[in-house]
Amino acid sequence: MNFLPKDEKFFELFENHAGILCKAAKLMITGLESGYEGMCGIAKEMGELEDQGDHVIHDIFARLRSTFITPFDPEDIQALATAIDDVLDGIDDLTFRIVAYRLDPIPASVLGIAEMVYSSCSLLSLALNALHHKKPVIDLCIEINRLENEADKIERMMLAELFRSEKDPIALIKQKEIYELLETITDRCEDVADVIQNVAVKNS
Amino acid sequence: MNFLPKDEKFFELFENHAGILCKAAKLMITGLESGYEGMCGIAKEMGELEDQGDHVIHDIFARLRSTFITPFDPEDIQALATAIDDVLDGIDDLTFRIVAYRLDPIPASVLGIAEMVYSSCSLLSLALNALHHKKPVIDLCIEINRLENEADKIERMMLAELFRSEKDPIALIKQKEIYELLETITDRCEDVADVIQNVAVKNS
Amino acid sequence: MNFLPKDEKFFELFENHAGILCKAAKLMITGLESGYEGMCGIAKEMGELEDQGDHVIHDIFARLRSTFITPFDPEDIQALATAIDDVLDGIDDLTFRIVAYRLDPIPASVLGIAEMVYSSCSLLSLALNALHHKKPVIDLCIEINRLENEADKIERMMLAELFRSEKDPIALIKQKEIYELLETITDRCEDVADVIQNVAVKNS
Repeated sequence: MNFLPKDEKFFELFENHAGILCKAAKLMITGLESGYEGMCGIAKEMGELEDQGDHVIHDIFARLRSTFITPFDPEDIQALATAIDDVLDGIDDLTFRIVAYRLDPIPASVLGIAEMVYSSCSLLSLALNALHHKKPVIDLCIEINRLENEADKIERMMLAELFRSEKDPIALIKQKEIYELLETITDRCEDVADVIQNVAVKNS
Repeated sequence: MNFLPKDEKFFELFENHAGILCKAAKLMITGLESGYEGMCGIAKEMGELEDQGDHVIHDIFARLRSTFITPFDPEDIQALATAIDDVLDGIDDLTFRIVAYRLDPIPASVLGIAEMVYSSCSLLSLALNALHHKKPVIDLCIEINRLENEADKIERMMLAELFRSEKDPIALIKQKEIYELLETITDRCEDVADVIQNVAVKNS
Repeated sequence: MNFLPKDEKFFELFENHAGILCKAAKLMITGLESGYEGMCGIAKEMGELEDQGDHVIHDIFARLRSTFITPFDPEDIQALATAIDDVLDGIDDLTFRIVAYRLDPIPASVLGIAEMVYSSCSLLSLALNALHHKKPVIDLCIEINRLENEADKIERMMLAELFRSEKDPIALIKQKEIYELLETITDRCEDVADVIQNVAVKNS
């Protein structure tokens, strides 16, 4: 991994992308802390962050088409940008669904997993920075995996409790989907970590 | 992209595949225009188109295994055939679900997104033809992306309206899935466009 | 495919992985044959098999990072391990959901598709063994495809019947998801077969 100066731009773009992702995750937490009204209040700003993410991914792909020298495999650059965007899309979709489903009040457990999503996004941002500066990423990726496992266990408990106690079918449909979507987002964070680790190993 | 004559066969197969896809999308529109009874009436023919698609994909993969000279990367040929088939599967699944769910009457908004699916399929067919004849594909792919964005916005409005007004849980389940499936189909059209654009760039 | 002795280890790991998968499929059948209480009884052991699968996949990836000589493409090794794990995850998820949803009694048709899953897993195990010993895999893969097609047809009949007769929305939600998950598992078996066939062709 001997980077020519122009390669720096890719890392800069990825760090921008991860920065937008962290902002989106933080915004989701802020919204959830103020309940349903809070989520309605952040929906517009979330949409703007999603647009910003689309611009970054567009820049990454345009640069990929126009350059021969990339800091790592073009396939991995594409996989990394797509994987980060999938996390961002998940957070945007969660925001949309809570608002559209009028999930009011929002179950307290939702905030619990959302905080794990925010932690994972922060770790992804650190891991991309470590990748850039050729520092080890393995401990950060292991922690993202641990968070995914924990989120998976909590989601299962929440689903079992939901089917035990919720007798209103539409209320059940709403909560079930929100829990599953949160778990999917932590899965996607793990997918990003897998790409990062893969790149780190190939270039070590 | 200097094609030997035998390479022509791949493009012919892809254009066949896209032709079947356009027929299926058109058939879906015809069915939807006649309501639930219309959809029941086209289900058998839709199944036959799905079978025809399976034959084409089988031919593409068989040819891929038996030839060394391909007009573009074997991985991209495989990705393209799979992506086209995923759109066709989506249209077939939509037809099946409307029939099996006895979605009667079919909400008017379903036809609206279905027409966008048909437009996307027609554009895909044009883009494959352009790729074959080394003409630019970019404007066609941008239009497919625009349609996907628009379909996404309409789907979100339809879901929000559904959760606002539909109080019958089973009716809600049916419509929710049909709207989401339509949006998934436009996503898959975008995936095909991404592969086409990718191939065009690599071979430019 | 001229294997050095150390390459044998990869095949051994894949055969272990497939062995765990067959145990899990068999355990699912055993549970289903004893109804809801049976499924509750096997949940813990299923979780342990899932953990064993995670260990094998971890070993495969660690070996992949530390070795230069692999019996087939590193990308295919990764794809194969991931695809086998996805089947195992599906079986574990099915077990979890039947228990969490308190699906009691379990519809008789569930056992029917579950037996097809078990057949597919056994065929996958045979196909991996054939790949190892450079014997033909094609007939085994065709049979896995046939089972997937059949499972798909049965799932569609079950869904249509469910929407025709089930008037309790929560009961409908539970059964719908279990049927769809079973069908997804047979899809994933087909994905494994596709990777195996792909590897066999490339190395023939």
